[in-house]
Amino acid sequence: MNLLIVFSHPNQKSLNGAFLKSVLNGSMENSSIKNIQLLDLYEENFNPILFFDEKVKRRHMYKNPAFSKHRDQLLWADKIVFLYPIWWGRPPAMLLGYFDQVLSAHFAYKETGKYTTKGLLKGKSVICISTMKGPGLYPFFFLHNGHKVLMKKAVFRFVGIKKVKFFEFGSMEGTGQAKKIDKIYRYFRGMCA
Amino acid sequence: MNLLIVFSHPNQKSLNGAFLKSVLNGSMENSSIKNIQLLDLYEENFNPILFFDEKVKRRHMYKNPAFSKHRDQLLWADKIVFLYPIWWGRPPAMLLGYFDQVLSAHFAYKETGKYTTKGLLKGKSVICISTMKGPGLYPFFFLHNGHKVLMKKAVFRFVGIKKVKFFEFGSMEGTGQAKKIDKIYRYFRGMCA
Repeated sequence: MNLLIVFSHPNQKSLNGAFLKSVLNGSMENSSIKNIQLLDLYEENFNPILFFDEKVKRRHMYKNPAFSKHRDQLLWADKIVFLYPIWWGRPPAMLLGYFDQVLSAHFAYKETGKYTTKGLLKGKSVICISTMKGPGLYPFFFLHNGHKVLMKKAVFRFVGIKKVKFFEFGSMEGTGQAKKIDKIYRYFRGMCA
Repeated sequence: MNLLIVFSHPNQKSLNGAFLKSVLNGSMENSSIKNIQLLDLYEENFNPILFFDEKVKRRHMYKNPAFSKHRDQLLWADKIVFLYPIWWGRPPAMLLGYFDQVLSAHFAYKETGKYTTKGLLKGKSVICISTMKGPGLYPFFFLHNGHKVLMKKAVFRFVGIKKVKFFEFGSMEGTGQAKKIDKIYRYFRGMCA
Protein backbone atom coordinates (compact mmCIF):
# COMPACT_ATOMS: atom_id res chain seq x y z
CA MET A 1 0.00 0.00 0.00
CA ASN A 2 1.18 3.50 -0.92
CA LEU A 3 0.26 6.11 1.68
CA LEU A 4 0.06 9.85 0.97
CA ILE A 5 -0.21 12.22 3.93
CA VAL A 6 -1.44 15.76 3.23
CA PHE A 7 -0.64 18.04 6.16
CA SER A 8 -2.38 21.44 6.32
CA HIS A 9 -1.31 23.17 9.50
CA PRO A 10 1.08 26.18 9.51
CA ASN A 11 3.29 24.73 12.21
CA GLN A 12 4.66 21.20 12.64
CA LYS A 13 5.46 22.09 16.28
CA SER A 14 1.78 21.97 17.14
CA LEU A 15 -0.76 19.42 18.25
CA ASN A 16 -1.43 18.73 14.57
CA GLY A 17 2.29 18.13 14.21
CA ALA A 18 2.15 15.62 17.09
CA PHE A 19 -0.64 13.78 15.25
CA LEU A 20 1.50 13.83 12.11
CA LYS A 21 4.36 12.16 14.00
CA SER A 22 2.03 9.48 15.32
CA VAL A 23 0.67 8.80 11.81
CA LEU A 24 4.25 8.51 10.51
CA ASN A 25 5.48 6.35 13.39
CA GLY A 26 2.52 3.98 13.21
CA SER A 27 2.74 3.73 9.42
CA MET A 28 6.46 2.96 9.45
CA GLU A 29 5.81 0.01 11.77
CA ASN A 30 2.98 -1.28 9.56
CA SER A 31 4.21 -3.94 7.17
CA SER A 32 1.27 -3.53 4.80
CA ILE A 33 2.39 0.04 4.02
CA LYS A 34 5.13 -0.09 1.39
CA ASN A 35 5.77 3.58 0.70
CA ILE A 36 4.93 6.86 2.41
CA GLN A 37 4.89 10.35 0.92
CA LEU A 38 4.31 13.48 2.99
CA LEU A 39 2.93 16.66 1.43
CA ASP A 40 3.16 19.61 3.84
CA LEU A 41 1.15 22.30 2.03
CA TYR A 42 2.40 25.19 4.18
CA GLU A 43 6.02 24.09 4.05
CA GLU A 44 6.05 23.86 0.27
CA ASN A 45 4.23 27.21 -0.08
CA PHE A 46 1.44 25.60 -2.03
CA ASN A 47 -0.60 28.16 -4.00
CA PRO A 48 -4.26 27.55 -3.06
CA ILE A 49 -5.74 30.29 -5.27
CA LEU A 50 -7.47 28.89 -8.33
CA PHE A 51 -7.31 31.42 -11.14
CA PHE A 52 -8.93 31.36 -14.58
CA ASP A 53 -10.14 33.89 -17.14
CA GLU A 54 -10.61 34.19 -20.92
CA LYS A 55 -7.01 33.06 -21.57
CA VAL A 56 -6.34 30.66 -18.70
CA LYS A 57 -9.20 28.22 -19.17
CA ARG A 58 -10.55 26.17 -16.31
CA ARG A 59 -10.95 23.16 -18.58
CA HIS A 60 -7.17 23.09 -19.13
CA MET A 61 -6.39 22.98 -15.41
CA TYR A 62 -5.64 19.26 -15.52
CA LYS A 63 -2.56 20.02 -17.61
CA ASN A 64 -1.23 22.82 -15.37
CA PRO A 65 2.42 21.81 -14.79
CA ALA A 66 2.43 23.60 -11.40
CA PHE A 67 0.33 20.75 -10.00
CA SER A 68 1.55 17.72 -11.95
CA LYS A 69 3.45 16.55 -8.85
CA HIS A 70 0.25 16.71 -6.79
CA ARG A 71 -1.79 14.86 -9.41
CA ASP A 72 0.92 12.18 -9.62
CA GLN A 73 0.88 11.80 -5.83
CA LEU A 74 -2.88 11.18 -5.85
CA LEU A 75 -2.60 8.63 -8.68
CA TRP A 76 0.26 6.90 -6.86
CA ALA A 77 -1.53 6.70 -3.49
CA ASP A 78 -3.79 3.85 -2.41
CA LYS A 79 -4.75 5.65 0.78
CA ILE A 80 -4.68 9.39 1.43
CA VAL A 81 -4.59 10.91 4.90
CA PHE A 82 -5.67 14.53 5.37
CA LEU A 83 -4.57 16.08 8.64
CA TYR A 84 -5.86 19.57 9.52
CA PRO A 85 -7.40 21.81 12.15
CA ILE A 86 -11.04 22.92 11.90
CA TRP A 87 -11.37 26.68 11.45
CA TRP A 88 -14.84 28.20 11.11
CA GLY A 89 -16.40 24.74 10.91
CA ARG A 90 -14.21 23.45 8.05
CA PRO A 91 -10.58 22.81 6.98
CA PRO A 92 -8.19 25.77 6.47
CA ALA A 93 -8.37 27.67 3.16
CA MET A 94 -5.00 26.07 2.32
CA LEU A 95 -6.46 22.54 2.11
CA LEU A 96 -9.65 23.65 0.36
CA GLY A 97 -7.50 25.51 -2.17
CA TYR A 98 -5.54 22.28 -2.72
CA PHE A 99 -8.84 20.67 -3.76
CA ASP A 100 -9.70 23.70 -5.95
CA GLN A 101 -6.35 23.45 -7.77
CA VAL A 102 -5.63 19.74 -7.96
CA LEU A 103 -9.02 18.01 -8.34
CA SER A 104 -9.54 19.20 -11.89
CA ALA A 105 -11.98 17.93 -14.51
CA HIS A 106 -10.38 15.27 -16.79
CA PHE A 107 -8.11 14.33 -13.89
CA ALA A 108 -10.30 13.73 -10.83
CA TYR A 109 -13.67 13.48 -12.57
CA LYS A 110 -15.22 13.82 -15.99
CA GLU A 111 -18.55 15.04 -17.20
CA THR A 112 -20.76 12.36 -18.69
CA GLY A 113 -23.86 14.53 -19.27
CA LYS A 114 -25.29 17.92 -18.47
CA TYR A 115 -25.58 17.19 -14.74
CA THR A 116 -23.82 13.85 -14.47
CA THR A 117 -20.18 13.19 -13.72
CA LYS A 118 -17.95 10.21 -13.12
CA GLY A 119 -15.22 10.09 -10.49
CA LEU A 120 -11.78 9.08 -11.81
CA LEU A 121 -10.01 8.32 -8.53
CA LYS A 122 -11.94 5.13 -7.80
CA GLY A 123 -10.51 2.41 -5.57
CA LYS A 124 -8.62 4.74 -3.28
CA SER A 125 -9.56 5.44 0.32
CA VAL A 126 -9.29 8.48 2.56
CA ILE A 127 -8.74 9.13 6.25
CA CYS A 128 -9.45 12.62 7.62
CA ILE A 129 -7.94 13.57 10.96
CA SER A 130 -9.14 16.92 12.26
CA THR A 131 -8.72 18.81 15.48
CA MET A 132 -10.86 21.56 16.89
CA LYS A 133 -10.96 23.75 19.90
CA GLY A 134 -14.62 23.22 20.78
CA PRO A 135 -16.25 20.00 22.03
CA GLY A 136 -16.24 17.03 19.66
CA LEU A 137 -20.01 16.76 19.42
CA TYR A 138 -20.56 20.42 18.51
CA PRO A 139 -20.54 19.88 14.69
CA PHE A 140 -22.99 17.00 15.03
CA PHE A 141 -25.50 18.94 17.09
CA PHE A 142 -25.16 22.44 15.68
CA LEU A 143 -23.71 22.29 12.19
CA HIS A 144 -25.61 19.32 10.67
CA ASN A 145 -22.20 17.66 10.49
CA GLY A 146 -21.40 20.21 7.75
CA HIS A 147 -17.68 19.50 7.65
CA LYS A 148 -18.05 15.75 7.22
CA VAL A 149 -20.90 16.02 4.73
CA LEU A 150 -19.02 18.46 2.54
CA MET A 151 -15.80 16.43 2.60
CA LYS A 152 -17.46 13.07 2.07
CA LYS A 153 -20.16 13.97 -0.44
CA ALA A 154 -19.08 17.18 -2.17
CA VAL A 155 -15.41 16.22 -2.52
CA PHE A 156 -14.51 12.57 -2.17
CA ARG A 157 -17.63 10.88 -3.50
CA PHE A 158 -17.53 13.27 -6.46
CA VAL A 159 -14.07 12.05 -7.47
CA GLY A 160 -15.04 8.40 -6.96
CA ILE A 161 -13.70 7.79 -3.45
CA LYS A 162 -16.32 6.05 -1.33
CA LYS A 163 -14.25 4.80 1.58
CA VAL A 164 -13.75 7.75 3.93
CA LYS A 165 -12.96 7.49 7.62
CA PHE A 166 -13.00 10.45 10.04
CA PHE A 167 -11.18 11.02 13.28
CA GLU A 168 -12.58 14.27 14.69
CA PHE A 169 -10.90 15.36 17.90
CA GLY A 170 -12.50 18.16 19.92
CA SER A 171 -11.51 20.11 23.04
CA MET A 172 -7.93 20.33 21.84
CA GLU A 173 -6.85 22.84 24.46
CA GLY A 174 -7.91 20.48 27.23
CA THR A 175 -6.07 17.51 28.73
CA GLY A 176 -6.10 13.98 27.34
CA GLN A 177 -4.24 14.73 24.12
CA ALA A 178 -1.62 12.01 24.66
CA LYS A 179 -4.36 9.38 24.58
CA LYS A 180 -5.72 10.66 21.27
CA ILE A 181 -2.26 10.82 19.74
CA ASP A 182 -1.60 7.25 20.86
CA LYS A 183 -4.93 6.13 19.41
CA ILE A 184 -3.83 7.43 16.00
CA TYR A 185 -0.42 5.76 16.32
CA ARG A 186 -2.04 2.40 17.10
CA TYR A 187 -4.59 2.79 14.32
CA PHE A 188 -1.94 3.39 11.66
CA ARG A 189 0.32 0.63 13.02
CA GLY A 190 -2.49 -1.91 12.73
CA MET A 191 -4.32 -0.58 9.69
CA CYS A 192 -5.00 -2.98 6.81
CA ALA A 193 -5.57 -2.04 3.17
CA MET B 1 -26.59 52.57 5.13
CA ASN B 2 -22.98 51.64 4.30
CA LEU B 3 -22.69 48.69 1.94
CA LEU B 4 -19.58 46.52 1.59
CA ILE B 5 -19.39 44.09 -1.34
CA VAL B 6 -16.84 41.27 -1.12
CA PHE B 7 -16.30 39.72 -4.55
CA SER B 8 -14.49 36.36 -4.74
CA HIS B 9 -14.36 35.26 -8.36
CA PRO B 10 -11.12 35.29 -10.42
CA ASN B 11 -12.70 37.10 -13.34
CA GLN B 12 -15.07 40.09 -13.42
CA LYS B 13 -15.93 39.18 -17.04
CA SER B 14 -17.96 36.22 -15.82
CA LEU B 15 -21.48 35.48 -14.71
CA ASN B 16 -20.38 36.40 -11.19
CA GLY B 17 -19.16 39.68 -12.65
CA ALA B 18 -22.60 40.25 -14.20
CA PHE B 19 -24.17 39.73 -10.78
CA LEU B 20 -21.67 42.19 -9.32
CA LYS B 21 -22.74 44.82 -11.84
CA SER B 22 -26.39 44.27 -11.01
CA VAL B 23 -25.66 44.60 -7.27
CA LEU B 24 -23.79 47.86 -7.94
CA ASN B 25 -26.39 49.27 -10.33
CA GLY B 26 -29.30 48.46 -8.02
CA SER B 27 -27.45 49.82 -4.96
CA MET B 28 -26.56 53.09 -6.68
CA GLU B 29 -30.24 53.69 -7.41
CA ASN B 30 -31.23 52.91 -3.82
CA SER B 31 -31.54 56.10 -1.77
CA SER B 32 -31.21 54.27 1.55
CA ILE B 33 -27.65 53.21 0.63
CA LYS B 34 -25.30 56.10 1.41
CA ASN B 35 -21.89 54.61 0.61
CA ILE B 36 -20.61 51.57 -1.25
CA GLN B 37 -17.21 49.89 -0.99
CA LEU B 38 -16.13 47.05 -3.24
CA LEU B 39 -13.48 44.55 -2.14
CA ASP B 40 -12.37 42.33 -5.04
CA LEU B 41 -10.22 39.73 -3.28
CA TYR B 42 -8.62 38.38 -6.47
CA GLU B 43 -7.93 41.81 -7.91
CA GLU B 44 -6.15 43.00 -4.81
CA ASN B 45 -4.18 39.76 -4.51
CA PHE B 46 -5.54 39.10 -1.05
CA ASN B 47 -3.39 36.61 0.88
CA PRO B 48 -5.81 33.93 2.16
CA ILE B 49 -3.19 31.81 3.96
CA LEU B 50 -3.39 32.17 7.72
CA PHE B 51 0.02 31.56 9.23
CA PHE B 52 1.10 31.34 12.86
CA ASP B 53 3.84 29.63 14.86
CA GLU B 54 5.81 30.13 18.09
CA LYS B 55 6.75 33.70 17.12
CA VAL B 56 3.73 34.83 15.09
CA LYS B 57 0.95 34.25 17.61
CA ARG B 58 -2.60 33.64 16.53
CA ARG B 59 -3.89 35.73 19.44
CA HIS B 60 -2.15 38.79 17.97
CA MET B 61 -3.82 38.43 14.56
CA TYR B 62 -6.29 41.20 15.30
CA LYS B 63 -3.39 43.69 15.23
CA ASN B 64 -1.88 42.44 11.94
CA PRO B 65 -1.47 45.63 9.87
CA ALA B 66 -1.85 43.67 6.62
CA PHE B 67 -5.57 43.34 7.37
CA SER B 68 -6.38 46.61 9.15
CA LYS B 69 -8.09 47.88 5.99
CA HIS B 70 -10.31 44.78 5.90
CA ARG B 71 -11.20 45.05 9.57
CA ASP B 72 -12.04 48.74 9.12
CA GLN B 73 -14.28 47.89 6.16
CA LEU B 74 -16.25 45.41 8.27
CA LEU B 75 -16.64 47.90 11.14
CA TRP B 76 -17.74 50.60 8.66
CA ALA B 77 -20.33 48.41 6.89
CA ASP B 78 -23.95 48.07 7.98
CA LYS B 79 -24.59 45.40 5.37
CA ILE B 80 -22.06 43.06 3.77
CA VAL B 81 -22.64 41.27 0.47
CA PHE B 82 -20.57 38.19 -0.36
CA LEU B 83 -20.62 37.21 -4.02
CA TYR B 84 -18.94 33.93 -5.04
CA PRO B 85 -19.21 30.71 -7.00
CA ILE B 86 -19.71 27.37 -5.25
CA TRP B 87 -16.75 25.03 -5.76
CA TRP B 88 -16.82 21.60 -4.11
CA GLY B 89 -19.97 22.50 -2.21
CA ARG B 90 -18.62 25.71 -0.64
CA PRO B 91 -17.08 29.13 -1.46
CA PRO B 92 -13.61 29.36 -3.08
CA ALA B 93 -10.56 29.02 -0.82
CA MET B 94 -9.98 32.76 -1.43
CA LEU B 95 -13.14 33.79 0.47
CA LEU B 96 -12.69 31.19 3.21
CA GLY B 97 -9.12 32.44 3.66
CA TYR B 98 -10.49 35.97 4.00
CA PHE B 99 -12.51 34.70 6.99
CA ASP B 100 -9.44 32.87 8.36
CA GLN B 101 -7.34 36.05 8.20
CA VAL B 102 -9.78 38.86 9.01
CA LEU B 103 -12.27 37.42 11.54
CA SER B 104 -9.76 37.28 14.37
CA ALA B 105 -10.36 36.92 18.09
CA HIS B 106 -10.57 40.31 19.87
CA PHE B 107 -11.85 41.82 16.62
CA ALA B 108 -14.76 39.65 15.41
CA TYR B 109 -15.41 37.72 18.62
CA LYS B 110 -14.02 37.29 22.11
CA GLU B 111 -13.83 34.38 24.46
CA THR B 112 -15.98 34.69 27.53
CA GLY B 113 -15.31 31.25 29.00
CA LYS B 114 -13.70 27.92 28.16
CA TYR B 115 -16.29 27.10 25.47
CA THR B 116 -18.23 30.34 25.27
CA THR B 117 -17.66 33.29 22.98
CA LYS B 118 -19.33 36.57 22.17
CA GLY B 119 -19.67 37.98 18.66
CA LEU B 120 -18.38 41.53 18.26
CA LEU B 121 -19.94 42.42 14.89
CA LYS B 122 -23.51 42.62 16.17
CA GLY B 123 -26.14 44.69 14.38
CA LYS B 124 -24.77 44.12 10.89
CA SER B 125 -26.48 42.00 8.26
CA VAL B 126 -25.18 39.79 5.46
CA ILE B 127 -26.35 38.80 1.98
CA CYS B 128 -24.69 35.82 0.28
CA ILE B 129 -25.08 35.50 -3.48
CA SER B 130 -23.68 32.25 -4.85
CA THR B 131 -23.73 30.56 -8.22
CA MET B 132 -23.23 26.93 -9.02
CA LYS B 133 -23.15 24.72 -12.02
CA GLY B 134 -25.48 22.02 -10.72
CA PRO B 135 -29.20 22.34 -10.00
CA GLY B 136 -30.24 24.74 -7.24
CA LEU B 137 -31.84 22.11 -5.04
CA TYR B 138 -28.84 19.79 -5.03
CA PRO B 139 -27.28 21.20 -1.80
CA PHE B 140 -30.61 20.93 -0.01
CA PHE B 141 -31.21 17.31 -0.95
CA PHE B 142 -27.71 15.90 -0.95
CA LEU B 143 -25.44 18.06 1.18
CA HIS B 144 -27.68 18.79 4.22
CA ASN B 145 -27.47 22.43 3.07
CA GLY B 146 -23.82 22.26 4.20
CA HIS B 147 -22.80 25.53 2.57
CA LYS B 148 -25.58 27.59 4.14
CA VAL B 149 -25.25 25.95 7.53
CA LEU B 150 -21.51 26.55 7.69
CA MET B 151 -21.79 30.17 6.55
CA LYS B 152 -24.73 31.03 8.76
CA LYS B 153 -23.86 29.14 11.93
CA ALA B 154 -20.11 28.55 11.90
CA VAL B 155 -19.17 31.99 10.57
CA PHE B 156 -21.76 34.75 10.85
CA ARG B 157 -23.61 33.74 14.00
CA PHE B 158 -20.25 33.21 15.69
CA VAL B 159 -19.27 36.85 15.08
CA GLY B 160 -22.69 38.11 16.17
CA ILE B 161 -24.42 38.53 12.79
CA LYS B 162 -27.86 36.97 12.89
CA LYS B 163 -29.48 38.47 9.79
CA VAL B 164 -28.23 36.46 6.82
CA LYS B 165 -30.01 36.19 3.48
CA PHE B 166 -29.01 33.75 0.73
CA PHE B 167 -29.49 33.88 -3.01
CA GLU B 168 -28.33 30.51 -4.33
CA PHE B 169 -28.47 30.27 -8.11
CA GLY B 170 -28.04 26.84 -9.71
CA SER B 171 -27.76 25.58 -13.29
CA MET B 172 -25.53 28.51 -14.20
CA GLU B 173 -24.53 27.11 -17.57
CA GLY B 174 -28.17 26.94 -18.67
CA THR B 175 -30.41 29.66 -19.98
CA GLY B 176 -32.40 32.12 -17.88
CA GLN B 177 -29.44 33.98 -16.39
CA ALA B 178 -30.73 37.43 -17.43
CA LYS B 179 -33.79 36.92 -15.23
CA LYS B 180 -31.66 36.04 -12.20
CA ILE B 181 -29.38 39.02 -12.78
CA ASP B 182 -32.39 41.29 -13.03
CA LYS B 183 -33.83 39.82 -9.83
CA ILE B 184 -30.67 40.83 -7.98
CA TYR B 185 -30.72 44.31 -9.54
CA ARG B 186 -34.31 44.84 -8.40
CA TYR B 187 -33.62 43.45 -4.95
CA PHE B 188 -30.75 45.85 -4.33
CA ARG B 189 -32.62 48.79 -5.81
CA GLY B 190 -35.54 48.27 -3.44
CA MET B 191 -33.71 46.93 -0.40
CA CYS B 192 -34.35 48.61 2.95
CA ALA B 193 -32.00 48.68 5.95
